[in-house]
Amino acid sequence: MASSSKTTFVDANDLLARRAAQKRGLISFAGGLPDPALFPKRQLSQAFLSAVGADAVTALQYGWPEGSRELREQIASELAARGASVEAERIIITSGAQQAIQIATTLAGPRPRIAVEPETYPGALEIFRSARAKLVGMAEAAQLYYVMPSVSNPRGQRLSDEERLALFERARHNQGYIVEDDAYAGTRFSTGVDSPLLATHPDRVFHVGTYSKTLCPGLRIGWLVAPKRLAKRALGQKQASDLQANGLSQALLVQYLQSGHFAGLQRRARAHYRRKLRRLLAAVQRHLPQLRYTAPIGGFSLWLDCEQHLSDTRLLEAAIARGVSFDLGHRFRAAPAKTLAIRLCFSAVADADIEPGVARIAQAFAKAFSRRHSG
Amino acid sequence: MASSSKTTFVDANDLLARRAAQKRGLISFAGGLPDPALFPKRQLSQAFLSAVGADAVTALQYGWPEGSRELREQIASELAARGASVEAERIIITSGAQQAIQIATTLAGPRPRIAVEPETYPGALEIFRSARAKLVGMAEAAQLYYVMPSVSNPRGQRLSDEERLALFERARHNQGYIVEDDAYAGTRFSTGVDSPLLATHPDRVFHVGTYSKTLCPGLRIGWLVAPKRLAKRALGQKQASDLQANGLSQALLVQYLQSGHFAGLQRRARAHYRRKLRRLLAAVQRHLPQLRYTAPIGGFSLWLDCEQHLSDTRLLEAAIARGVSFDLGHRFRAAPAKTLAIRLCFSAVADADIEPGVARIAQAFAKAFSRRHSG
Repeated sequence: MASSSKTTFVDANDLLARRAAQKRGLISFAGGLPDPALFPKRQLSQAFLSAVGADAVTALQYGWPEGSRELREQIASELAARGASVEAERIIITSGAQQAIQIATTLAGPRPRIAVEPETYPGALEIFRSARAKLVGMAEAAQLYYVMPSVSNPRGQRLSDEERLALFERARHNQGYIVEDDAYAGTRFSTGVDSPLLATHPDRVFHVGTYSKTLCPGLRIGWLVAPKRLAKRALGQKQASDLQANGLSQALLVQYLQSGHFAGLQRRARAHYRRKLRRLLAAVQRHLPQLRYTAPIGGFSLWLDCEQHLSDTRLLEAAIARGVSFDLGHRFRAAPAKTLAIRLCFSAVADADIEPGVARIAQAFAKAFSRRHSG
Repeated sequence: MASSSKTTFVDANDLLARRAAQKRGLISFAGGLPDPALFPKRQLSQAFLSAVGADAVTALQYGWPEGSRELREQIASELAARGASVEAERIIITSGAQQAIQIATTLAGPRPRIAVEPETYPGALEIFRSARAKLVGMAEAAQLYYVMPSVSNPRGQRLSDEERLALFERARHNQGYIVEDDAYAGTRFSTGVDSPLLATHPDRVFHVGTYSKTLCPGLRIGWLVAPKRLAKRALGQKQASDLQANGLSQALLVQYLQSGHFAGLQRRARAHYRRKLRRLLAAVQRHLPQLRYTAPIGGFSLWLDCEQHLSDTRLLEAAIARGVSFDLGHRFRAAPAKTLAIRLCFSAVADADIEPGVARIAQAFAKAFSRRHSG
C-alpha cells in the first residue's frame, strides 16, 4: 500500500489512516476488519478450482444482474433459519453490503430525509451525504430509517423488542422504509441471533447482508431484499450501477458454502472474537478509566467516549506517533459533537498486542491532553 | 439460469431475452459476450493460487478504495503504450466499466445534460436515465459527452481525427467533460489502436476501460481516470458506491498479467473474432440483403438497420420461435425511432452456427413482416 503517500486526492482523515497503515510495528485498532487468520485459504482455493472446473463459463462470463440462483437459494435458506421466509427470487446479490445500502438510498429519490442513530456506520453516512440527504434523528419523520438491529456499528448493541416495535410504528406512520443493515448479525458472541426485521415487516424493510464479516471482504458479496413493490426498481438500479456482482466470487462462494465448512468457521470465529474482546475490556479498564463504554454483544469494535471536549484527531496523531491507531469517533457521528469518542476494533489485533496497544493509547491521551498542549 | 422465468420483477424486454437464454439449441447473437472458449482457465487458476499463496490478506481482506497499486501500475503502462501518460496514482479500479461511467455521471450533478450518439451502449443509457439526465445530440451543449472513440458499440466504428477535434472543441466551448468509454479498444481487428482521448486532453476526459472484453467479464475489473480537479470526488463516489473493487479479482489479475500471457491471448482473440465477423458478413449478405450495415473495425457485433417501419420486438419473437436470438435495436437508441434495427453479436457464436443462425433470422423476418402479420 505504498501508493498511499503519493495519492494526492484523499482527504485529511484518510491521509492520517493511510500514514498509520504504512508504519512498521504499528498496532492498528482501525478499520473494522475481520481477522485474516480466520480466512479459510485452503478451502477457498479448493472452492475456486471446483468452481472453474465445474463451470468456468458461469464463473467468468457475464451473468444476470440479480446474481447466481444457487447463491440466492443459499442466502434464502440462511434467512429462513433465522425466521425470515423469503423467496430466493427476491434476493439481489450486490457488490458488498455497501452497494445494497446505496441502492436503497437511490430509490428514496433526490434529497431524501434519512433517519440515523447518533453514531452509525460511516460508509452509510457517506452514501447519504453524496445523495444530499437530510439526516434526522430516529424519532423524526423520514423516508428511510437506517438501523443495524442485530449488532450495531460502532456500539455493538441490539434493538430491544420495544425499540423494534416503535421503529415499525414510526416507519408505517410516516410511510417510510427501514434499511436493515444486518452486516454484523453473524458476529454475535452468543449463539442466539435475532430474527431480522425482514421477518415480520417485509413490505417496509430493505434487508442488507454480507459475507464480508463472517467469511472475507475481498469477495465483495452482499445482498439486498427490497420491498416487493420496489423490487423491479432495485434490480434496475443494481444493473445500472455495475451490471452484476462478481461472477468468480459468486461461483467460488457457492462451492465453499456447499462444502459445509461455513458453520464451523462461524463457531470458531465467535470464540476467537469473544476472547479478543475480553482482553480489550480488561486493558481499557486498566489503562483508560476516563473513557466510558457499554460492552458489545457482537461485532468487531468497542466504542469509547467521554463528556470532555477533546479532539479525536489530536489523540490519533499522538497515538500514531506512539505506534498505535484507531478509528476517529467523529466519522461515526451524524452531527458534529465536541466530546471525544473513538472506536477500537479488536477483531484483527493479535492477542498479545491488545494490552500494549491500549497502554500506548493511554500514553497518547496523557500527552495530547496534558495542560501544556491543550487549548 | 432457470431462476429467470420465476423472476417477477424484470421488464418485458428482459423477459424476452431470458426466455431465449433458457431455450435449448438456441443460437444466440445477443449480449456482447466474449467467447468463453478464449477464457484462459488454466492460467487464471494458476494466477489464483499464486495470489492466495503469495499474499492471501491482500486478496481476501478489505483494500483501499482506489484499488491495488500493482494493478494500477499495469494499467498505467498499458495506457502509456497507447500514448497516454498517466500516473498510476490517478487510476481508480472500478467494478467494471459500468461503474466507471456511473461515477462520471454522478459527478455531473443532478439532472445533467448528456450528449450521446444516436445509437449507443444501453448500459450507459440506463445510467443516464436513472440519473434523470436530459439526453441531447453530440452537436449540442452538454455537461458530459459520452463516446466510444476507438471502437463504438453497437456500430464498431472509430472517430476520425476531425471528429475528435470537433468533439474537444465543443466540450471546451461548453465547459463540458468527455466520457471516453474505451471498453472495446482492445478488440480492434487490426493491430493498430488509436490513442485514447485521454492522451491529449486529460483535463477534459473521464477515461473508462475494462478487462471484460479482452480477458473475462466475471472478474468485474474496470478503471476510471478522472480529470485531476475531480479526482478526489471520483474516489469518494467510488468508495460510497461499494467501498472497493473485488480484491480477489485484482490480486488474480495482477498475477495473470505478470505471467506474460495476456499479449498472446489478445493476438489469438483478434484473429478469432475477425474470422467470426467474416462469416457473419457473408451470411448477412446472402440472407438479409434488405438490411444495411457498415463493416465494423472491432468489437463483438454488427449493427443492421433499414428504412422501413418494422418492430424489432416482433422480429425477435419470431426469431426465438425459430431458435435464434439477437439484441433489440431500440435499446441502443437514445430517442425512439420506428425504423427497424438489430444488433448481431458474433463474438460468442460457434463458427458453424453463424450461417444457419442468420438464415433463421431471415425466415423470422419473412414470417414477422409478411403482409398477413403486418399492420
